[in-house]
Amino acid sequence: MSGRWLDEIKWTDDGLVPVIAQEAGSGKVLMFAWMNRESLQLTAEKHEAVYWSRSRGRLWHKGEESGHVQKVHDIRLDCDNDVILLTVEQRGSIACHTGRHSCFYKRFENDNWVEVEPVLKDPEEIYK
Amino acid sequence: MSGRWLDEIKWTDDGLVPVIAQEAGSGKVLMFAWMNRESLQLTAEKHEAVYWSRSRGRLWHKGEESGHVQKVHDIRLDCDNDVILLTVEQRGSIACHTGRHSCFYKRFENDNWVEVEPVLKDPEEIYK
Repeated sequence: MSGRWLDEIKWTDDGLVPVIAQEAGSGKVLMFAWMNRESLQLTAEKHEAVYWSRSRGRLWHKGEESGHVQKVHDIRLDCDNDVILLTVEQRGSIACHTGRHSCFYKRFENDNWVEVEPVLKDPEEIYK
Repeated sequence: MSGRWLDEIKWTDDGLVPVIAQEAGSGKVLMFAWMNRESLQLTAEKHEAVYWSRSRGRLWHKGEESGHVQKVHDIRLDCDNDVILLTVEQRGSIACHTGRHSCFYKRFENDNWVEVEPVLKDPEEIYK
């Protein structure tokens, strides 16, 4: 894929860049994932988040199974050209595979991780 | 360092975990960095962000040179136990070494990265 804007990114040795997805409006940080060159290009073209699944070793169009697509409003790059920040509209209000709004639902309290956000939908319902 | 809460984190092979710093109140994502076990422990103890500088190979108490300390209000862990989200109060309103509020000041527009946030203070003034 062509694109000087893609060349400007400092990819990891694995050809990836870390990506933060933040919700438009609420400002909530929903999730963190990775993209490769192709997935970032697709994200820019489709205006929908396409990540690179490291565990599955393939492109991952967010919501492809769950329907919880992320419509992309804004793409930012940081000072060091090595982190991406997306502003997204989260279809279904569920970004996390556990059925929660955000993946960051464990809060540090008294040397413990405490779950502080509710499951909005049973994952078995989401991924049936 | 002891701490079952630290053992629960899935550290990278290099013993690190990615960290997102979000501003309390504004909800702005300010920066992205890494922590090792010791820096996360220190962050929890001091209630101030202590990162691991990969470029310098040492602990990096954010603001140690610039004075732009991050007071930590909240520490979150994600569903996969491999990403940390901090809610911070940013001393001096400057998180970025370029003198900007946030590190994410380049916006994707028409296949270009466009700087859309002002420098609040000359870095030469900050790091003199």
